[in-house]
Amino acid sequence: MSRVRVHNFSISLDGFATGAGQSLEQPFGHAEARLHEWFFQTRTFRSMHGEAGGGAGVDEAVASAWEPGIGAEIMGRNKFGPQRGPWADDEWQGWWGENPPFHTPVFVLTHHPRPSLPMAGGTTFHFLDATPAEALRQAREAAGELDVRIGGGPTTVREFLAADLIDHLHIVVVPIILGRGVRLWDDLEGLEKRFTVESVTTPRGVTHVTFSRP
Amino acid sequence: MSRVRVHNFSISLDGFATGAGQSLEQPFGHAEARLHEWFFQTRTFRSMHGEAGGGAGVDEAVASAWEPGIGAEIMGRNKFGPQRGPWADDEWQGWWGENPPFHTPVFVLTHHPRPSLPMAGGTTFHFLDATPAEALRQAREAAGELDVRIGGGPTTVREFLAADLIDHLHIVVVPIILGRGVRLWDDLEGLEKRFTVESVTTPRGVTHVTFSRP
Repeated sequence: MSRVRVHNFSISLDGFATGAGQSLEQPFGHAEARLHEWFFQTRTFRSMHGEAGGGAGVDEAVASAWEPGIGAEIMGRNKFGPQRGPWADDEWQGWWGENPPFHTPVFVLTHHPRPSLPMAGGTTFHFLDATPAEALRQAREAAGELDVRIGGGPTTVREFLAADLIDHLHIVVVPIILGRGVRLWDDLEGLEKRFTVESVTTPRGVTHVTFSRP
Repeated sequence: MSRVRVHNFSISLDGFATGAGQSLEQPFGHAEARLHEWFFQTRTFRSMHGEAGGGAGVDEAVASAWEPGIGAEIMGRNKFGPQRGPWADDEWQGWWGENPPFHTPVFVLTHHPRPSLPMAGGTTFHFLDATPAEALRQAREAAGELDVRIGGGPTTVREFLAADLIDHLHIVVVPIILGRGVRLWDDLEGLEKRFTVESVTTPRGVTHVTFSRP
């Protein structure tokens, strides 16, 4: 059975995976880039953006696991864009430009479905109003033998964790106190009992916490 | 100037420093002993309880810093005992038996003061209805040249952090999801900007995060 995986999911020490006040200018709200600085310096992130070089240590080793073996992604609508409610039009194509870094089908969970959106490089956005289990069924069908990535944001990851649909969860704890935003851990008491948990701090000061099925 | 220090303060990955439902049988509520297992195996903890042996690695090195140089402690009433509201009588003498491990004056913050309580081994509990700043003034006077420890619980530590009265904060993140209890980090947005922050994970799987004045 293929696995369902979360990778490179950054949270603050107080558990927020995004700040308050998401907008077109600030996809992570008042958190700005602070949750992801550890990621920006990796070779994986730089190559996603067509740049050479970057760190090649443990941060990179862990970060690079996000792509191999993935056949589809599921993301929440708030990861796809800053709009809320019905779509004013179909012009918004995500934050990632003409050639998004996914290169697979991407299922966007929204109460306001719209036509599928094929992009360059193999990414197609599909819009679904569905439960986590139903979305996963469709993503698995699209992924074939490959794994499915749950791409975020925090509300989506939390819903899939609550439904016990995730097999591998990679969290990056960044030692900042955001104070407000969207929390990852609410209503997940005892989550660790379903997983083998491993933690490691890297010289950049973040802690990679991995939950994997025993 | 003497410093104000917090040591060995354990929190869950979702930020709770104690569980829900504190009682005489469960001082940490439904968290039971899970936040402190890393500590129980150290030489420091074992010697506090008159036992020999114990771990002597990095957990121990960090844990052992809690005592040297401390001349007084301030704690919240919920660390002192499970009672709430007016004291029924003066019989409760804390959780720690006749010879508590503090060996200094200990100032217990409570809206219900009662007579000071001298114990064996140099610990005297004083009961104060005071602001953090006023309590610290009295503790500093008692401590002389030595430092003052803020002993917890989470509400007390948070109030002293909010008032910017803490110089050294040692937090231990335990990778469990408690889901309910008392949070440490609420309303402390941007706390890290006042400190130099260092994180290290030990083989036991906890992450020691140290905030110290730059």
